[in-house]
Amino acid sequence: MTVGKMQLAKRIDHIAIVVQDLDAALQVYRDVLGLPLERVEEVPAEKVKVAFLPLPEGDGEVELVQPTTHDTGIARYLAERGEGMHHICFEVGDIQAAMADLAAAGLQVLEEEPRLGSQGQKYVFIHPKTAHGVLIELYERPK
Amino acid sequence: MTVGKMQLAKRIDHIAIVVQDLDAALQVYRDVLGLPLERVEEVPAEKVKVAFLPLPEGDGEVELVQPTTHDTGIARYLAERGEGMHHICFEVGDIQAAMADLAAAGLQVLEEEPRLGSQGQKYVFIHPKTAHGVLIELYERPK
Repeated sequence: MTVGKMQLAKRIDHIAIVVQDLDAALQVYRDVLGLPLERVEEVPAEKVKVAFLPLPEGDGEVELVQPTTHDTGIARYLAERGEGMHHICFEVGDIQAAMADLAAAGLQVLEEEPRLGSQGQKYVFIHPKTAHGVLIELYERPK
Repeated sequence: MTVGKMQLAKRIDHIAIVVQDLDAALQVYRDVLGLPLERVEEVPAEKVKVAFLPLPEGDGEVELVQPTTHDTGIARYLAERGEGMHHICFEVGDIQAAMADLAAAGLQVLEEEPRLGSQGQKYVFIHPKTAHGVLIELYERPK
């Protein structure tokens, strides 16, 4: 097995925190911790509202995610486990190659094909049961 | 209140993942995701063993943390909630000033004085109940 030689995860793209109420959470993450709020975006495909807070130094961002309905995985996660860290997203170079490597190594990718974001980015999630309890998102930057 | 004007959290220093067994977790995070393993360190003061995996691009690292006893907060967290993301650590410039700002804003800092790490770094934790479910570590680089 040679997958260990590859640097599949390049950088931390973001940490997603699921919250009940975006405005209340911004009072901590923007107003107290001082993270700059870049934008708030409705993502109808995911039924969430997301606040993007890029760190002022280094790179990577905090995303505060508020479910807008009750019938999604993230809404059920919030109802069952409460607010808190939801997933970590690593950027990869080639998401299709990454998916093949992960599957070969026995990790469960939740999508058969990458999902396509509003900016042309591609992303998939790895089941936390196969990643030591962590929901991992892999993300490929738009070309 | 002017704390919102400050950029208190500068960068993501690390994401800590609590695991049952470091070697098993390394098979995913090092061998499949390809994160380079910098070192494994025993931290007797915290009763944990930590694997440090800095991301190859950008900055920040993943820390895999295995409790070495059953009588610590992180060991109880693992027993109750299972493996998964445990805390996020932000670097700050001046931890004493940060602690004062956080307390003024109503966030609960778990230490009265910063803890001192083996490299001279200072760090404190913020109670997740006052930070929307997230255990946040603040870290000041050694001078």
